[in-house]
Amino acid sequence: MFFYTEKLINEIVPDQPDPDAAKALQETLGGHFGEMRTMMQFFFQSANFRGKAKPFRDLIRGVFVEEISHVELVMTTINKLLEGSGTSPADGNAGNAAIPLNEALRGGQIHHYLVGAQGSMPVDAAGNPWNGSWVYSSGNLIADLLDNLVLESTGRLQKCRIYEMSSNKTLRETLAFLIVRDTAHQIAFAKALETLGVNWGKVLPIPDIDISKYPECQKYIDRGWDKVQFNFRMDTTQIAQIFQGMAPSRTGGTLSVVTPPEGYPLPEAAEIPAEFSPGLPQEIQSQFTQTMPTH
Amino acid sequence: MFFYTEKLINEIVPDQPDPDAAKALQETLGGHFGEMRTMMQFFFQSANFRGKAKPFRDLIRGVFVEEISHVELVMTTINKLLEGSGTSPADGNAGNAAIPLNEALRGGQIHHYLVGAQGSMPVDAAGNPWNGSWVYSSGNLIADLLDNLVLESTGRLQKCRIYEMSSNKTLRETLAFLIVRDTAHQIAFAKALETLGVNWGKVLPIPDIDISKYPECQKYIDRGWDKVQFNFRMDTTQIAQIFQGMAPSRTGGTLSVVTPPEGYPLPEAAEIPAEFSPGLPQEIQSQFTQTMPTH
Amino acid sequence: MFFYTEKLINEIVPDQPDPDAAKALQETLGGHFGEMRTMMQFFFQSANFRGKAKPFRDLIRGVFVEEISHVELVMTTINKLLEGSGTSPADGNAGNAAIPLNEALRGGQIHHYLVGAQGSMPVDAAGNPWNGSWVYSSGNLIADLLDNLVLESTGRLQKCRIYEMSSNKTLRETLAFLIVRDTAHQIAFAKALETLGVNWGKVLPIPDIDISKYPECQKYIDRGWDKVQFNFRMDTTQIAQIFQGMAPSRTGGTLSVVTPPEGYPLPEAAEIPAEFSPGLPQEIQSQFTQTMPTH
Amino acid sequence: MFFYTEKLINEIVPDQPDPDAAKALQETLGGHFGEMRTMMQFFFQSANFRGKAKPFRDLIRGVFVEEISHVELVMTTINKLLEGSGTSPADGNAGNAAIPLNEALRGGQIHHYLVGAQGSMPVDAAGNPWNGSWVYSSGNLIADLLDNLVLESTGRLQKCRIYEMSSNKTLRETLAFLIVRDTAHQIAFAKALETLGVNWGKVLPIPDIDISKYPECQKYIDRGWDKVQFNFRMDTTQIAQIFQGMAPSRTGGTLSVVTPPEGYPLPEAAEIPAEFSPGLPQEIQSQFTQTMPTH
Amino acid sequence: MFFYTEKLINEIVPDQPDPDAAKALQETLGGHFGEMRTMMQFFFQSANFRGKAKPFRDLIRGVFVEEISHVELVMTTINKLLEGSGTSPADGNAGNAAIPLNEALRGGQIHHYLVGAQGSMPVDAAGNPWNGSWVYSSGNLIADLLDNLVLESTGRLQKCRIYEMSSNKTLRETLAFLIVRDTAHQIAFAKALETLGVNWGKVLPIPDIDISKYPECQKYIDRGWDKVQFNFRMDTTQIAQIFQGMAPSRTGGTLSVVTPPEGYPLPEAAEIPAEFSPGLPQEIQSQFTQTMPTH
Amino acid sequence: MFFYTEKLINEIVPDQPDPDAAKALQETLGGHFGEMRTMMQFFFQSANFRGKAKPFRDLIRGVFVEEISHVELVMTTINKLLEGSGTSPADGNAGNAAIPLNEALRGGQIHHYLVGAQGSMPVDAAGNPWNGSWVYSSGNLIADLLDNLVLESTGRLQKCRIYEMSSNKTLRETLAFLIVRDTAHQIAFAKALETLGVNWGKVLPIPDIDISKYPECQKYIDRGWDKVQFNFRMDTTQIAQIFQGMAPSRTGGTLSVVTPPEGYPLPEAAEIPAEFSPGLPQEIQSQFTQTMPTH
Repeated sequence: MFFYTEKLINEIVPDQPDPDAAKALQETLGGHFGEMRTMMQFFFQSANFRGKAKPFRDLIRGVFVEEISHVELVMTTINKLLEGSGTSPADGNAGNAAIPLNEALRGGQIHHYLVGAQGSMPVDAAGNPWNGSWVYSSGNLIADLLDNLVLESTGRLQKCRIYEMSSNKTLRETLAFLIVRDTAHQIAFAKALETLGVNWGKVLPIPDIDISKYPECQKYIDRGWDKVQFNFRMDTTQIAQIFQGMAPSRTGGTLSVVTPPEGYPLPEAAEIPAEFSPGLPQEIQSQFTQTMPTH
Repeated sequence: MFFYTEKLINEIVPDQPDPDAAKALQETLGGHFGEMRTMMQFFFQSANFRGKAKPFRDLIRGVFVEEISHVELVMTTINKLLEGSGTSPADGNAGNAAIPLNEALRGGQIHHYLVGAQGSMPVDAAGNPWNGSWVYSSGNLIADLLDNLVLESTGRLQKCRIYEMSSNKTLRETLAFLIVRDTAHQIAFAKALETLGVNWGKVLPIPDIDISKYPECQKYIDRGWDKVQFNFRMDTTQIAQIFQGMAPSRTGGTLSVVTPPEGYPLPEAAEIPAEFSPGLPQEIQSQFTQTMPTH
Repeated sequence: MFFYTEKLINEIVPDQPDPDAAKALQETLGGHFGEMRTMMQFFFQSANFRGKAKPFRDLIRGVFVEEISHVELVMTTINKLLEGSGTSPADGNAGNAAIPLNEALRGGQIHHYLVGAQGSMPVDAAGNPWNGSWVYSSGNLIADLLDNLVLESTGRLQKCRIYEMSSNKTLRETLAFLIVRDTAHQIAFAKALETLGVNWGKVLPIPDIDISKYPECQKYIDRGWDKVQFNFRMDTTQIAQIFQGMAPSRTGGTLSVVTPPEGYPLPEAAEIPAEFSPGLPQEIQSQFTQTMPTH
Repeated sequence: MFFYTEKLINEIVPDQPDPDAAKALQETLGGHFGEMRTMMQFFFQSANFRGKAKPFRDLIRGVFVEEISHVELVMTTINKLLEGSGTSPADGNAGNAAIPLNEALRGGQIHHYLVGAQGSMPVDAAGNPWNGSWVYSSGNLIADLLDNLVLESTGRLQKCRIYEMSSNKTLRETLAFLIVRDTAHQIAFAKALETLGVNWGKVLPIPDIDISKYPECQKYIDRGWDKVQFNFRMDTTQIAQIFQGMAPSRTGGTLSVVTPPEGYPLPEAAEIPAEFSPGLPQEIQSQFTQTMPTH
Repeated sequence: MFFYTEKLINEIVPDQPDPDAAKALQETLGGHFGEMRTMMQFFFQSANFRGKAKPFRDLIRGVFVEEISHVELVMTTINKLLEGSGTSPADGNAGNAAIPLNEALRGGQIHHYLVGAQGSMPVDAAGNPWNGSWVYSSGNLIADLLDNLVLESTGRLQKCRIYEMSSNKTLRETLAFLIVRDTAHQIAFAKALETLGVNWGKVLPIPDIDISKYPECQKYIDRGWDKVQFNFRMDTTQIAQIFQGMAPSRTGGTLSVVTPPEGYPLPEAAEIPAEFSPGLPQEIQSQFTQTMPTH
Repeated sequence: MFFYTEKLINEIVPDQPDPDAAKALQETLGGHFGEMRTMMQFFFQSANFRGKAKPFRDLIRGVFVEEISHVELVMTTINKLLEGSGTSPADGNAGNAAIPLNEALRGGQIHHYLVGAQGSMPVDAAGNPWNGSWVYSSGNLIADLLDNLVLESTGRLQKCRIYEMSSNKTLRETLAFLIVRDTAHQIAFAKALETLGVNWGKVLPIPDIDISKYPECQKYIDRGWDKVQFNFRMDTTQIAQIFQGMAPSRTGGTLSVVTPPEGYPLPEAAEIPAEFSPGLPQEIQSQFTQTMPTH
């Protein structure tokens, strides 16, 4: 069973709206190697797990639960990148009151403006919808772990590439956090294979980049977040039987399971009348926005 | 942020293996109106929510969080329905040691045996993969609520139809629980629309069935679970500003937000050598199954 | 059985070519909530209709038949928006005889130039092909009507958004007509649910916009076309048993079934040699374009 | 613009329910070479037509309009094949009141019972949804005509194969009618290419079968329906400039344009309580089934 | 550039027709981890290869070229499994001349009889078409090699599972050959990663099975085919810089590059009149089957 | 069985990088009528061939084998068009070291930079993945040949259209070669149908263009490559029983089977650090790039 608290796993840093960056970041949400895939793949693998070697199940499940928060973070980042596009002076469209969504025809992903109200979607950067055939859950534990390693490696590779596409701070901060966490998750599955006898030498993590060259990454590395697994379990877990000891990483270091971050507030998303969003009658809207006792 | 405790939201009742029932139940997992869709649709809508009418966001988010546990329940039920197929005397295959997976050619969904190791998959009952284009998140709140009502109604309709397809107890117990909960969720979105001025008369819930005619449903109705919203929030929520008062349902009754069930243990899934699952070397397997201190 | 007369249901207003607008309008043709979907969904529902409450079948079928003409109108509008692109001075490409289709690399939807000869396609604005899984025909009449309401509402919402994207007159005139008709069709399904006991209050139509703020809409409203159902039946129909009385709409008004518009001529589409379209040998072409007695 | 009269283009002959035949016939409805494809392909080609050689446009459009009625015929035939399955003594399930939809697990296409209420769907015989990428509308007239010939030929080939799969009379009568009409349509596109200079020799129609060996075909051949084009136009058409003279067919004969059949009544589809279809409250149902004046 | 000689890479062993086995084997042809995927993935990776470490490119390309012959072998095996179904006494259908394709409704994959003429298709065992999104070609060599390892491992796992589904000799012989070759290819990519510093311990090959327990595999193991790479290059290749030395396999052994097998004749496929295949007029057929000098 | 020599079937002519041209050329690789389709369609048809008229099988197979080299040529051309984009002065991005992949957000196909490392992909120009449902292999020889003719005609039509989109020399040279070869292949299938009795008159090849107006085509025409079939068979073939005599082409000429071109070197693809491609550690890279004896 799953529980929720209204916090983001990392903060959203403000910058100019950037529909092109939002389009690119869709790969990280709904792409073949995006966070929806990691979330669902580890969900299926942990639910379908066979046999008694529970620490492996706990490892996969532990990563899965964190991934739900990653999906939420990427959704929110995309929304932030879209918000204000079409109206800010920065895009040269200011004052074009007669065609407020004209931005949608001039770049980015048109569905962000047409199917959603400048909101995230379950599609990749080229607009293809997320596809269930991508989920790998073979039931063979070694094969599952290897595929998970490829998945986390490719996710990290793609995030580094998107980082190289834009200097937008909202985009880069979220990517930097996720690159650090993908590092830890990549190492997690590599470590699980190490317990089965594999010695990874120096090939990990993939890609071969010193992520401290990305300034936004440094603070997360300083906190050790490339070597820890956040524990979102409310009961006990045997994950530490695997996720401990030396990291199978070029950078070395010791693995440990820690409590997750405190969390950051979800930003409010402004109404967009041109999108008819949320489109509530004024009297209703105000009825629900009076201060009132919460449940 | 999301947290987890290793409990199922409802119990798995044992019965004979039934690959055909497992195939049918895939619709409830990975179909156009299955639990993966409800989970992802409400995830997107709550993350993409615009404006200040937060109780609506809390309502959608509250249903979303429960849906994750529904997905887990359906995955586990499918696995249970598959387990033991191919080897039990019941299917006439006992002793056919030379072709242990012959069952896969004689009914059910062949991918259950071939792509997974008798495990659930993100596909529908006809084998089509889950598709991101199904998710509805228009950003217009009224449209979103109406589509959610259709989604919950169709989910309930399809579950009733699957119930009529088989007398397998494992299948029917999970369906009965979900039919009752779909009733509550259908009412939740109807109630949200009622706060905007709609009077539903007697058309809900869809379909028009007295679910107490399904014996397994009765105990859940007795507990009032067709009229409550389980609260999986660890912080406060304004859901009760909407989910309260008379239910817009033929059966009447009063809505209330309650603490969720205690939860039920996840069943252990046996190894299946013919599937090479989990396929760990014996010495590794035993190393991880000794009693040892948990994290 | 179906019959045809070579007339468009509304007129095509001339303006500059606009490939970006053509791309956007593909959503209205081949998108998840486009006219192909409405046409096919109501076709399936009316053919699959069960039971004796025929006026509902007649209502769904009546809207279906009109939708075929909508599809034709949108196809023709897209073609008009594409025609002349790549050669007109307006797009800065004049005289670039060496690369006449260069326009295709500079915006719009490349398939319009590559797969078709500047012609409409069964895809959405992001280039995804139309998908049969989108059609909803559950056989439960109440669920079908609710989904139809969502479909018409979302179609109207998306058309309003496209209207806000461009000031092109060809685009806006077709959208304006369709927004008015979607209003009537949304009301039609809402009315059918009203006969089953639902009171819609003030939530309809979706989205909450005074469409008279779109100048092109006004003349259609003046004709009452947001409150009528065109009758394309050559035999009798019981649609007026449902489609009559007060409209369940914020704007009120009385519903009535009327004869359809006279229709407008289909524009001629010019040859495009760079597209090899139609690509007939000259002598053949001329043989078929002499004045000759029609059948 | 399109008009409708509630008649089927051919009659539905009664026989036992046959879910396996219904599954096979889905190919003819929603398959790559089914009637939905022919309908939509000729719709796009005629709307996207370029140049002045109008008789070709009229030919393509003429076939298109008839295809809408073919789609309706196949939908209705599938429904008839499904109706009564699950309850008739013939399938050994009589009296199994506790699991009335058990049939759905024992053959056929499970979605017929689960997604629809024993109704037709826009999918092929293997359950894959209809896909817009199949539509061919290149804008080059010769290429379009050749592809249309392949489409009609393949449709005829597949219908002959389905005919060889089952002796069900409901199935075979509809197939026989469509095989005869596919013959005429195949010849129509071949004739159009003949006017451009192709001499087909003896290769048509495809496949090389004497369809009078199918007893149901004989009466249609006797009426000359393998050599005529039904004219569903309410205005004039130049189709007869092409569709006239000797048929480019092994069987020879003269082509002519004729008035369409009178049409046959659409069969009533019974309610199916186990499918919750239509699922109307009794009082509503009866209100709409009293004799009352039609519009 | 590619060259061809009309030989199969392994022999087709005769047995009874078995449409269910043919359906299962489609996974090995057109599935997510089938031979079409391996062929195309290694084709893209070798063509897209960056940098100067050519022996890696030669290795990937070498496996690619062999995979084309694997695709041909699986196509032919499926055809053989289908041939004679529907008419042989074994399936109880003998003499049912009136419905010669009735077999298609009673099991297997209906498209084998309806879309093809009892021939192989680019689809998986559940009927889903092959999908380009499955191809992995990231441009990062380490990631590509790891994914290739997962691909070959999963292919081997699925083939072992299909082997356990049926005792049909035609099926099992082809599977046995491919399991042995997948072993060698899995080892090839593992070895490439070993040159980059990975020590695989005892986890390979996946799955952990002593394939000599499959009697058909033994002869191929005796020939050493689980440790060799066939060289289909007509020019030089640097593959042996990687594919040499000890195999990173539980079974040990030394790797070597060898000349490919001599090849086996492609079986003739009989005409099937009920499928209208090939459907040539008799006089043409005979014209082309006289003995005549070859080119 | 298939053999390979590391040569391209035609040369790659250098020009500026052009991501938009690369995007367009994806249609020729992974589109509905691209080279992957021709390759796989003729592969399936030749492997599934029924009956004794072997020269037809040899013809289809002969074209198939050449198509593999076409796929390789298009892959390489796309790579060349992408190489250097993002860094050359020509695109105004020089010196923008901080965001080296910024190009990806400013045009072209973003997946070229994000999913691949500026490498080709199995998708079309609109980003849709290649789809197995496009392959036509009906088993009826006449239908197969007709569809092949449509396929080759449409491929030629689309290549001519892409040629009209850009003056890039790298792009146009590859297109010119393929247009000439598509001409020959179109004629090949037309000739096969001619042997069955069809007289094509003057309708072929499609489209009706004098390709000598494309300067790059002239040299290939001078070599006669629009009238020959390259023979990549290492054994005998009966293709010349069909591919001989007068071409069924507007331009006339005599058909002949010839030895293939000598081939051209595959260009080296430079490393791209910003893409982490190939991303090998320096010491490994150098180890494999020393001069060493080849196998």
